[in-house]
Amino acid sequence: MQIVREIPELRERIKKARQSGLTVGAVPTMGALHEGHLSLLRQAREETGFVVMSLFVNPTQFNDPADFEKYPRDDERDTALAASESVDILFQPAPEAIYPKDFDTVVVVRSLSDRLEGASRPGHFTGVSTVVCKLLNLITPDRAYFGEKDWQQLQVIKRMVTDLNIDTQIVSMPTIREHDGMAMSSRNVRLTPEQRQASVVLSRALGYTQDIADTGVINAYELAAWLRQSIAVEKLANIDYAVVVDPETLQEIDTIENGAIAAVAVKFGDVRLIDNRLLRSPITPAAPR
Amino acid sequence: MQIVREIPELRERIKKARQSGLTVGAVPTMGALHEGHLSLLRQAREETGFVVMSLFVNPTQFNDPADFEKYPRDDERDTALAASESVDILFQPAPEAIYPKDFDTVVVVRSLSDRLEGASRPGHFTGVSTVVCKLLNLITPDRAYFGEKDWQQLQVIKRMVTDLNIDTQIVSMPTIREHDGMAMSSRNVRLTPEQRQASVVLSRALGYTQDIADTGVINAYELAAWLRQSIAVEKLANIDYAVVVDPETLQEIDTIENGAIAAVAVKFGDVRLIDNRLLRSPITPAAPR
Repeated sequence: MQIVREIPELRERIKKARQSGLTVGAVPTMGALHEGHLSLLRQAREETGFVVMSLFVNPTQFNDPADFEKYPRDDERDTALAASESVDILFQPAPEAIYPKDFDTVVVVRSLSDRLEGASRPGHFTGVSTVVCKLLNLITPDRAYFGEKDWQQLQVIKRMVTDLNIDTQIVSMPTIREHDGMAMSSRNVRLTPEQRQASVVLSRALGYTQDIADTGVINAYELAAWLRQSIAVEKLANIDYAVVVDPETLQEIDTIENGAIAAVAVKFGDVRLIDNRLLRSPITPAAPR
Repeated sequence: MQIVREIPELRERIKKARQSGLTVGAVPTMGALHEGHLSLLRQAREETGFVVMSLFVNPTQFNDPADFEKYPRDDERDTALAASESVDILFQPAPEAIYPKDFDTVVVVRSLSDRLEGASRPGHFTGVSTVVCKLLNLITPDRAYFGEKDWQQLQVIKRMVTDLNIDTQIVSMPTIREHDGMAMSSRNVRLTPEQRQASVVLSRALGYTQDIADTGVINAYELAAWLRQSIAVEKLANIDYAVVVDPETLQEIDTIENGAIAAVAVKFGDVRLIDNRLLRSPITPAAPR
């Protein structure tokens, strides 16, 4: 594995890989790797000939400077994990290489960026779409891999790639979970043992909402109410949002018949966690007698 | 010359050209070709092996729908001119191919987009930077050619390409002028003979401003005052702006010692024209005795 920090060297190495006939896979990360990231690396390794993992804690997507400061960093461990997954290039640029003096351009996916995560974290998705646009232009991958845990981010990136005609296929991979169902996240390490135990309420509430849907409930607001209620029983959980919305536009919907996603953001102390679950269409109601 | 309207065919043909070892040159246009465009096509033909000219009157960069409606169109003539300049592909997409339903992304070069042309035409540069980003991602040219007549547009595009790491070299070509000095523009055909005669005041005023600078005047505000004054003598000229600013940032400057551009936007009837001239640094003042 080559560790590359400079853009010209990155371009040169990728050009050579392409010339030797390899397809290129990109796995953009902010480090603090967990099994979720590793599943992306493994999929990229399986599907492409040359895997580039970027490791860049992108300052512009943190609306809260304290969150940026506290974001877990462990370069040594991340480097070892990337190498053990047979990554070809670990691209780890300095902030000045990504945001030089006079940097002044943003990529904005308008309607998707303002709701849910975007409402709670102003500027977050503009930071995400801008840096991902840059990384895709730098790596020029045939395929780029993102986790479904950050569902809204995934929709923002797909929309941007389609809209700006970026010639990369976006591949999404399912959320990887702990044994108790808790979604893996780099931020989980910041939970106290008590908070960690409480946080299992998220995946349980999402599962419970599916159970309700399975009984034939298709009203999105009713399902969202069940979702909120089943999180609220946990005293340590401080709900930011808990909704049932359109899986692509994240807009409100009346029923889940044409597909829906249940998405939650909940704080445990000062650690904010998100999780989501695609809701299956409910059982077809029995035909009226 | 191939006329291509669909994106998949465009990508396929460019891919083949690249595979056969050709470099790719792009000349994005809105049609209504004049000698200015032809100079871009000739330069592209000289410097690259495969020349793609796009012809797309981009609706999103017209803040004024009437200007969009009245924008001159002559596909037959443009196609003949492109063919006579040995263009390889004329890419002429339908609006729906560029802006499909649910299109929702913008590329914004923030500080550059709000001043001068951006102040007079809200949203104009967002339309420009977004469509040029798309065209560069579609054509993936080694070099792309733009005229210096649209100076601020050129700076917006350069900034965007740098900031988003688009792997294309932006080449600019000097403004081509009529025999009387009038800058060629697709909008010139909309002038009455009387307005056309009056419009020569723009290039003359810019030349006069250089003459003043040559006498040793380096104060940007003083030079801008001369510029405005020498346009104002023409009764048919209705000044939108006439400024002397930094050539890259378009910000106000005190002196022209480190480079400056004189830029004007003037209406003749309902036709709005722009022109500009880089100001040479003045003669070094004689050392004090």
